Amino acid sequence: MSIDTAPRATPRNGVDIPTLFATLDAVRAAPAAAHFQFRATNQWVEGTHSRSTISDFFGVGEERAHAREFVFQADHPAVLVGHDNGPTPVEFVLHALASCLTAGIANIASARGVTLTEVRSTVTGDIDLNGILGLQDVRNGYQQVAIRFTISADAPEDVLREIVQQSRRRSAVYDVITHGVPVDIEVEVA
Amino acid sequence: MSIDTAPRATPRNGVDIPTLFATLDAVRAAPAAAHFQFRATNQWVEGTHSRSTISDFFGVGEERAHAREFVFQADHPAVLVGHDNGPTPVEFVLHALASCLTAGIANIASARGVTLTEVRSTVTGDIDLNGILGLQDVRNGYQQVAIRFTISADAPEDVLREIVQQSRRRSAVYDVITHGVPVDIEVEVA
Repeated sequence: MSIDTAPRATPRNGVDIPTLFATLDAVRAAPAAAHFQFRATNQWVEGTHSRSTISDFFGVGEERAHAREFVFQADHPAVLVGHDNGPTPVEFVLHALASCLTAGIANIASARGVTLTEVRSTVTGDIDLNGILGLQDVRNGYQQVAIRFTISADAPEDVLREIVQQSRRRSAVYDVITHGVPVDIEVEVA
Repeated sequence: MSIDTAPRATPRNGVDIPTLFATLDAVRAAPAAAHFQFRATNQWVEGTHSRSTISDFFGVGEERAHAREFVFQADHPAVLVGHDNGPTPVEFVLHALASCLTAGIANIASARGVTLTEVRSTVTGDIDLNGILGLQDVRNGYQQVAIRFTISADAPEDVLREIVQQSRRRSAVYDVITHGVPVDIEVEVA
């Protein structure tokens, strides 16, 4: 999730640039339109297996819904005492990071008049499970995350590198997972 | 992803407690077994739409694969100039958090001899898109995340609240998104 404010260009890369800039103009005129709330509901299935549903959100002043409801499973693999009904929760964090930076790259490239042929990435997260196992005093989460992009486009290497940097500077997920965010937990016993 | 070290109990909640404790004993004897690397590969499709594949990982000293390959789309909704082929990247962060804390609750409850009837949660993330739009000096990511659990089980309220707290204390995703993690970005131009 990242867009840019460079000079206007014709639509490319599947990005509707006129609408992108019209959205920017609309939010500039009414900044509260940019206040969004995203949501997921989760239901435990059994063991480490649960299922989340993502359907509605709030934005541009009103309740909205995705075109359809999205449902995702999460679980642990057998080696982590689960049944592998879905990726682990920490793997979804990697998908979130790669997809956020990639969407930004496409939007920014389009705004700068660059036509992309391919954007691929591999993202890795190293984790020492002695933390969550309570066996050693190491952090519970990833110790480091690395993402490597391969990009083909009709622009010189320095232009493409700067597009990736601008995507990083405007990425919501990059911000969350590099800087952290306060999380409030409430429990209701039914 | 969270387990606990309380007294052993019979299997419940779909959690294989003997295997869980055998895993703990094995890692205690050979701590390097707990070094894992998780991975996702992402391919841009068009506009803000991309697709991630999650299949292999490293752990317990060797390369491993999930029971099957998992594929996920991400996109923006129309109001954010996308085509809604999947949730936004930031919504996957909410799924990751809810599923990680829920897996921990199930493991810890099982280890403590508590049988769960239901664990549901709703997780919300508030975000001011003036950040990613570059229109105001606000952060790009969520400003706050809140998760509300509803739990039914055969234990008193204080026991259930303590199980949730222990899950929080041992959650990989909670750690990543509250404390942040370094992210290294490399770009190869093809």
